[in-house]
Amino acid sequence: MGSEQTARRFDDGPIGVFDSGVGGLTVLKAFHAELSGEKFIYLGDTARLPYGTKSNETVARYALQASETLAGYGIKALVVACNTASAASLPSIRERLSGIPVIGVIEPGAEVACRLTRTGHIGVIATEATVRGGAYQDAIQRRRPDAMVSVRPAQLFVALAEEGLHEGPIAQAVARHYLESLFHPPAAVTKAGEVTGGSEKASAPDTLVLGCTHFPMLVTAIRAVVGHAVRIVDSAATTAKTVRETLGTAGLSSSTGRSAVRFLATDGPERFARVGSRFLGQTLSPSDVELIDL
Amino acid sequence: MGSEQTARRFDDGPIGVFDSGVGGLTVLKAFHAELSGEKFIYLGDTARLPYGTKSNETVARYALQASETLAGYGIKALVVACNTASAASLPSIRERLSGIPVIGVIEPGAEVACRLTRTGHIGVIATEATVRGGAYQDAIQRRRPDAMVSVRPAQLFVALAEEGLHEGPIAQAVARHYLESLFHPPAAVTKAGEVTGGSEKASAPDTLVLGCTHFPMLVTAIRAVVGHAVRIVDSAATTAKTVRETLGTAGLSSSTGRSAVRFLATDGPERFARVGSRFLGQTLSPSDVELIDL
Repeated sequence: MGSEQTARRFDDGPIGVFDSGVGGLTVLKAFHAELSGEKFIYLGDTARLPYGTKSNETVARYALQASETLAGYGIKALVVACNTASAASLPSIRERLSGIPVIGVIEPGAEVACRLTRTGHIGVIATEATVRGGAYQDAIQRRRPDAMVSVRPAQLFVALAEEGLHEGPIAQAVARHYLESLFHPPAAVTKAGEVTGGSEKASAPDTLVLGCTHFPMLVTAIRAVVGHAVRIVDSAATTAKTVRETLGTAGLSSSTGRSAVRFLATDGPERFARVGSRFLGQTLSPSDVELIDL
Repeated sequence: MGSEQTARRFDDGPIGVFDSGVGGLTVLKAFHAELSGEKFIYLGDTARLPYGTKSNETVARYALQASETLAGYGIKALVVACNTASAASLPSIRERLSGIPVIGVIEPGAEVACRLTRTGHIGVIATEATVRGGAYQDAIQRRRPDAMVSVRPAQLFVALAEEGLHEGPIAQAVARHYLESLFHPPAAVTKAGEVTGGSEKASAPDTLVLGCTHFPMLVTAIRAVVGHAVRIVDSAATTAKTVRETLGTAGLSSSTGRSAVRFLATDGPERFARVGSRFLGQTLSPSDVELIDL
């Protein structure tokens, strides 16, 4: 009853989507399909990106500032569409924005991975900061305590996606660098010199979580290394479903039209529009982006 | 007389060195050789790096904050050891820190390039923001109005250097991506179908300026693409000479011992120490790095 009232109160408000930069636009893109008719307000903290190489304390401070700014726009829910910020700051954001639901991208990604894996061996690639925090291991092993989780930082993927070098020989070389040894481990050699395939636990993951919103841009290069049998989890679509479930019928917009988006950035509307168009899959112009200070 | 007095007043103070992160440590490394006996205080704005993808306004605001913070430590001179910050903010820093000399890295780099080039065709690679500002073209053409300047952004080199991937197949592929067409231009084909080498102006540069303090880390990969005849300019050594000339005998320390350095960073002493050790060419430990807020 209480949550229904809360949802109704914010019925007309937009859904806030926060990311360190343009990466979260891959999440917003999935929202368009799953949550049509909703209004969105997207904030990219482009002045201070990337979050993925920074300490948890700094990321948490920045994420709180951004969340409070979005709350000032009368949002009815907040999506932290940045894995690093989700990992570092979700509890503090929830505490600060107590009136509205706050949804991260890590739990939905972990949920799907646990559903898809058959062998119980799940690979996760993420930024340095997300890996350090251990949030994916926690979220996966809370659901499936017997899971084996192999986490690798893949920081360069961020720069490649931003530079538009998400396909081609460089992307492929970087994908091999990060993923080859995990997905094609050298056969184990026993003491007797016998080459074995190893136990199931020592084999490659059967599921790979893209634990950074930039990484779906590189899925072709990643797929070429991991092979076609591996299930690749991009949390964008699942996060959209979580938002739909969390808001419920009462909290969702009754409009049936196209969804509308307002874009805010803390730096460089020109770069945001140029790089962001690739991530969103539709053309943005710098005049679509409002420059704000946090 | 005035400047000599200024220098004397600050005789015992350290030389401040400011960078967006750890890149400026390649400059500090050159200072150790050229300016032994001096005290240095190095500030890396690691919480807000990289500057190279940000707008001039944001870079200038950050650089001013950092410069004022260093001024509070009683520095006798400030070196802006970041090309992007030098390009965006040198005049405003000089205005704000009017009592002490403020030295950037762009003018020294342009000076050497103009001295080394024979053909007058100079290549410059830099961050996106440095390229956009046009500071290298200006600095080179002020000295040599007939010079042809070919400037290319090479943003990914920053991430490669930070990730420790400055050598090997990925670095080589990225170096080819940025430099191949500039240094090995396809032969011009005339209307009659005749293949020509083109005029001297259309040929490759004979000199290449590394217009970002991260790039000297990649010099092996860069050299492999541009060839051995091209003169590669790293402004670190020249900047050290400029500091020596600017301070003059009166302004330099009379100590003959080893130089001493204090390291400040706005985020992550651990990452600063780990990545910075590679840039400085000597081992730093996280306890060597003081965390400060700007």
